[in-house]
Amino acid sequence: MTRHRFTPTHYFTTIGSHDPVLRIAPGDSVQTTTVDAWGFDASNTQVVQPPNPMTGPFDVEGAQPGDTLVVRLDRLTPNRDSGWGRPGLATNVVDPDFVPTLPSRDDLLHWHIDVAAETASLRDAEPKLGSFSLPLHPMLGCFGVAPLDGQAISTATSGEHGGNMDYNGFVQGVTVYFPVFVLGALFHLGDGHALQGDGEMSGTGIETSFDVEFTVDLIKGKRIGWPRGENATHIFAAGNARPLDQATQHATTEMVRWLQADYGLSMREANIVIGYCVEYDLGNMFDPAYTMICKIAKRWLSNR
Amino acid sequence: MTRHRFTPTHYFTTIGSHDPVLRIAPGDSVQTTTVDAWGFDASNTQVVQPPNPMTGPFDVEGAQPGDTLVVRLDRLTPNRDSGWGRPGLATNVVDPDFVPTLPSRDDLLHWHIDVAAETASLRDAEPKLGSFSLPLHPMLGCFGVAPLDGQAISTATSGEHGGNMDYNGFVQGVTVYFPVFVLGALFHLGDGHALQGDGEMSGTGIETSFDVEFTVDLIKGKRIGWPRGENATHIFAAGNARPLDQATQHATTEMVRWLQADYGLSMREANIVIGYCVEYDLGNMFDPAYTMICKIAKRWLSNR
Amino acid sequence: MTRHRFTPTHYFTTIGSHDPVLRIAPGDSVQTTTVDAWGFDASNTQVVQPPNPMTGPFDVEGAQPGDTLVVRLDRLTPNRDSGWGRPGLATNVVDPDFVPTLPSRDDLLHWHIDVAAETASLRDAEPKLGSFSLPLHPMLGCFGVAPLDGQAISTATSGEHGGNMDYNGFVQGVTVYFPVFVLGALFHLGDGHALQGDGEMSGTGIETSFDVEFTVDLIKGKRIGWPRGENATHIFAAGNARPLDQATQHATTEMVRWLQADYGLSMREANIVIGYCVEYDLGNMFDPAYTMICKIAKRWLSNR
Amino acid sequence: MTRHRFTPTHYFTTIGSHDPVLRIAPGDSVQTTTVDAWGFDASNTQVVQPPNPMTGPFDVEGAQPGDTLVVRLDRLTPNRDSGWGRPGLATNVVDPDFVPTLPSRDDLLHWHIDVAAETASLRDAEPKLGSFSLPLHPMLGCFGVAPLDGQAISTATSGEHGGNMDYNGFVQGVTVYFPVFVLGALFHLGDGHALQGDGEMSGTGIETSFDVEFTVDLIKGKRIGWPRGENATHIFAAGNARPLDQATQHATTEMVRWLQADYGLSMREANIVIGYCVEYDLGNMFDPAYTMICKIAKRWLSNR
Repeated sequence: MTRHRFTPTHYFTTIGSHDPVLRIAPGDSVQTTTVDAWGFDASNTQVVQPPNPMTGPFDVEGAQPGDTLVVRLDRLTPNRDSGWGRPGLATNVVDPDFVPTLPSRDDLLHWHIDVAAETASLRDAEPKLGSFSLPLHPMLGCFGVAPLDGQAISTATSGEHGGNMDYNGFVQGVTVYFPVFVLGALFHLGDGHALQGDGEMSGTGIETSFDVEFTVDLIKGKRIGWPRGENATHIFAAGNARPLDQATQHATTEMVRWLQADYGLSMREANIVIGYCVEYDLGNMFDPAYTMICKIAKRWLSNR
Repeated sequence: MTRHRFTPTHYFTTIGSHDPVLRIAPGDSVQTTTVDAWGFDASNTQVVQPPNPMTGPFDVEGAQPGDTLVVRLDRLTPNRDSGWGRPGLATNVVDPDFVPTLPSRDDLLHWHIDVAAETASLRDAEPKLGSFSLPLHPMLGCFGVAPLDGQAISTATSGEHGGNMDYNGFVQGVTVYFPVFVLGALFHLGDGHALQGDGEMSGTGIETSFDVEFTVDLIKGKRIGWPRGENATHIFAAGNARPLDQATQHATTEMVRWLQADYGLSMREANIVIGYCVEYDLGNMFDPAYTMICKIAKRWLSNR
Repeated sequence: MTRHRFTPTHYFTTIGSHDPVLRIAPGDSVQTTTVDAWGFDASNTQVVQPPNPMTGPFDVEGAQPGDTLVVRLDRLTPNRDSGWGRPGLATNVVDPDFVPTLPSRDDLLHWHIDVAAETASLRDAEPKLGSFSLPLHPMLGCFGVAPLDGQAISTATSGEHGGNMDYNGFVQGVTVYFPVFVLGALFHLGDGHALQGDGEMSGTGIETSFDVEFTVDLIKGKRIGWPRGENATHIFAAGNARPLDQATQHATTEMVRWLQADYGLSMREANIVIGYCVEYDLGNMFDPAYTMICKIAKRWLSNR
Repeated sequence: MTRHRFTPTHYFTTIGSHDPVLRIAPGDSVQTTTVDAWGFDASNTQVVQPPNPMTGPFDVEGAQPGDTLVVRLDRLTPNRDSGWGRPGLATNVVDPDFVPTLPSRDDLLHWHIDVAAETASLRDAEPKLGSFSLPLHPMLGCFGVAPLDGQAISTATSGEHGGNMDYNGFVQGVTVYFPVFVLGALFHLGDGHALQGDGEMSGTGIETSFDVEFTVDLIKGKRIGWPRGENATHIFAAGNARPLDQATQHATTEMVRWLQADYGLSMREANIVIGYCVEYDLGNMFDPAYTMICKIAKRWLSNR
């Protein structure tokens, strides 16, 4: 149950079977930092090239293919007072005929982050929106484990291994589950957002660097198919693919399997729970693979 | 401001330029009933063939192409104590390889509806779920106005005119806006659900007959592109198409236009609000056209 | 075996259960004309509003739901020396980021049609392409039968009933099969193209008016799911939907059924023939529903 | 202009920045062999694990990011007399409701390959199809260059770097162009098919091992976006993505750029050529990324 403190000296822009930076044991915690999507750190200095440089990977003792890695996000806090994002929506999220009217994708929007006040506000006021102060909602955009077959997958995209899911439900307090594909699991993390709209429709959240603390655990011999999560009220499964239809199919199939394996429901019952109680969140509709989240409230699953 | 009471004697399974059943004026209310998706009424008698037979159409005095029809859903109440749905998920919402494991699509699930207790429960208990009592959440699955160019569109699907959107946010208290395509708008409604999961993933909600009251109004000369809605906390736009990506593009584009036209935002500001504050709901992923909902909380739009 | 000569006096922009203009018997032929996509006739006069006005419908004696209507395209000939189209590609067929660079959708491209020489050439030469003379390849863009359930479906789109499939394989000499949904089948036709690239990527072919002759027949009690066709070398099935993936699923499923029902193949054999011998054509990727064509060369089906 | 003879001793199941097996110069040819999709060699012995083990990579002297690698496929010949494939269609290529009727995905279909006779025939006759002898049409299913940013991408899928495109137009005599992302380009190849239907709808062609000869060249400073090809009659561009709509957008956009850069056409002219003359082929609709091919016949591009 060691509490490690780790200061990164290099980063990766793929999630793969890279040499681990630290070996940790199930039950251990790690305090570390992440740089923003373009590699800028707490001092707003670019220390590495984009996209989405990852802290890690962390080698989890005893993790083997076919296990499940458990990662509890204990703390996610912006560690500088500035963040950036795009003002304009991405070209793929509006009607094709509407694309020429969008604001330039070259512009940047600068935000002031006030961790004490728990807000992010525009540094330069807009005519009508003013400083447009929004509540902080820090989340991890990109994190996951080394994928199957020696692949090294760009941190611009996502898959069964996790990656750039850009889902605003991956916040402090959430427990995340990943399928383990390689010895040691090799956990990577980065791409913090001070906040983000559903779907990351402008292709960015408010991108900034983070202080992070997380705790790992292992479920030996438990094989899952896609990243899963759990918070105080819900369990949820992520599907990563294009189009959104396929992402939704992956997430829904994973949830059926979960309800059967861990909640003792028959196939028919698992179908009923999803058919009448399911909720969906749009993770992102910007990255090469889109992310849909299939959620079930825990109250429909307890005492039954 | 007349309050009409209308008892339907026939129904339509397309939304089109049918002879109106009643002429009403802006400001008028109508108390009426709807049959369930298979044409069963309050006495659980089949009075018409499926799919989704519509009450109406109602001719709104003064409505012309280029106007917006306003429909406030004043009351949506199941008017019998039974409803039905499918136990199994639809074949298009899970991974193709998983389809052969799904429960049969021929089975029916029977629900007991208790309006006083505000619950729906399984008539036959399942081994693990038991009677699985859920809170009532009555909503209209299919409603809309006669479409463009003399089309008569099946109530199995949806489009710019509304139709079978199967979104569980169309509940009592919501105000809905439709583009007017023909003289009199010709408003149709039906397909009540006692409740429904996001996406209508089993292809049904809890299907039942309703007592309905609604109030109409007109916004002359205001041209909108897709159905819109408003509740106490949010404004939202519906996009209806396949795949979900295109439905999302339609809904998002409509929201940009709305924010510009009615909230005085510049194109850039409308993009910023969506980029950092938007929420999406999955209406349905079962019908020939899927439905995505683009929502903005009103708190981001006021006092600015 | 009557050979009818029919001169249209009015047209429809939906395919539906309209009053028939002529009753014909199985075995009969009809000589008639079609106007172009914008309603311009042989004298280049606009006689009706767009989109894609239909000649017909023709009531086929004895046709009942569950039958198959057979339509042989005996003759398709442009009946004027001009046609028009768009110069620019549609916004939905290129990468979203590329859309702002496309030529304006408001421009028109004028073509000179020379039936004797069997060419179409640009009326105004382009700097590098010159007059860009192309071989005539006359085809019907939109034709089909009245759909199910009293629907009237816009001639801008397509479905199980046929409609605006815009496939350049529907040429003179081809035999087309449609499922019959209503008494008399109610066959509509129009939207001739002097030629068209695969996919109708600019949203038009070379749009012009046609002299047409076709012969109808019936296959009683034969139920098919989607439009099918046959030429000297191939049989083919059309699937109409978005995205192209779904259109391809429809066309492929229809072909499996065809090979089983009419060629005596087992399910396994039908799968093998498609798996190793199939060809696909892109009908259109512009209309609300896209069209994919699943083709099998007859030589793989004979003498077996 | 060396003609290398290379005998592989190991293989890769990702395409990435692996240590090269041979350094070659522009103009050089390589005679080598490839194993089948499951790693079986000319003697039908499994020498490596699936999927799609690659021969190579070959380091091309002088190749730098921003260049184009030219690969002429001089010879593609099955080097054993057996091949295998699936009898049943993939679950994603038919209507979801139809999936449960498909033949088992566990079955294998064994083919006898006769290079002299240029045929492939079923080893075990089917009741109606008999031995179903088909003309050999040897093609490379998977080949490409190391991708951007240190990625190692599974040979099960494809991207801008090429990979598992499974297009039956990549045959002997074709010249293929790849964007260069890393020093030396690092060319990989494998996954020979004795023949394949359009779209690889059963998820396999006739999988076998090959004798291969290819010649490389470089176009310095020419930056392309996607794999391109050229045969005696056509130029073509490949787009790799899901859904097919996006693959088609990539391929079409790449073709517009090609026509402008290399054929001197204006944007408007490039649009016209595609709009009225384009052809599309379905590469594959099975792999994680689907492949669409946008083709232009050379006769529309010459002497203008």
